[in-house]
Amino acid sequence: MSDGHGTHQPDIRRLEHWDDLVSTDLLLHPIGVIRSTIKERKHAPKQGSEGAPDVWCDVHPSFTDAVKGLTVGDEVIVITWLHRAKRDVLKVHPRSDPKRQLTGVFATRSPDRPNPLGLHQVTIKAIENGRIRIGPMEAIDGTPVVDLKPVIC
Amino acid sequence: MSDGHGTHQPDIRRLEHWDDLVSTDLLLHPIGVIRSTIKERKHAPKQGSEGAPDVWCDVHPSFTDAVKGLTVGDEVIVITWLHRAKRDVLKVHPRSDPKRQLTGVFATRSPDRPNPLGLHQVTIKAIENGRIRIGPMEAIDGTPVVDLKPVIC
Repeated sequence: MSDGHGTHQPDIRRLEHWDDLVSTDLLLHPIGVIRSTIKERKHAPKQGSEGAPDVWCDVHPSFTDAVKGLTVGDEVIVITWLHRAKRDVLKVHPRSDPKRQLTGVFATRSPDRPNPLGLHQVTIKAIENGRIRIGPMEAIDGTPVVDLKPVIC
Repeated sequence: MSDGHGTHQPDIRRLEHWDDLVSTDLLLHPIGVIRSTIKERKHAPKQGSEGAPDVWCDVHPSFTDAVKGLTVGDEVIVITWLHRAKRDVLKVHPRSDPKRQLTGVFATRSPDRPNPLGLHQVTIKAIENGRIRIGPMEAIDGTPVVDLKPVIC
């Protein structure tokens, strides 16, 4: 990891001021991508537990060292970038049900939210060269992955 | 939310190619900031459950609508940007214990990792104008917050 994308961090002193804070760009870089049989958002279950399939998480070769220690059977949290989500939505009807009251997106799991990060708790089913089989996972094919973390109980 | 930072999403077709994928910038913008009595990383517990205090999450006024529906007593997951973390670290000794084998960061909760996102499961203790009391929380003072999500069991 000497490509220079790793080490920059914004100057925290600037973040004391609101206007600077909300205009600060924090740069994520995908470390992998989801390969799924679900190709469209309209076909994705709302949660992994609602009938989602197992998927492959293809990990970029430059991050091979970072997956060492993961084992089949581990429970991990995958953080995705929900690339089809709308970022200018602040309130939604929970579960897209118009009968439910409009609710702030931070009180829901809506993919539409200011920073479109998805959290997915999955089980590792297999590990091959450069790819990890995980599930169940509701994210659609092509969804960028930005982090993996073990579940802490 | 008409400030233009909300709606841009990268062209997913580009993400079919690894080199384009890992060089794609995904832009997060802080929606708030942690105000804590913990001022330095060396004083922070490794997990919230290890003696961390309650903190304030100051939410920027432009996101006030997005917190509507959160209630005292709710369990939420706070996603932070660990602004003091090193991004070029791929392996660490778990819990900074040199006796433990070097392990890929995706198999650990190390703050040092390619995308320095922190996950913190906390309880909402109070909600005031524009700020939310949460805890226990190990993140240090000034840590940017990028998302809040309800816990789904």
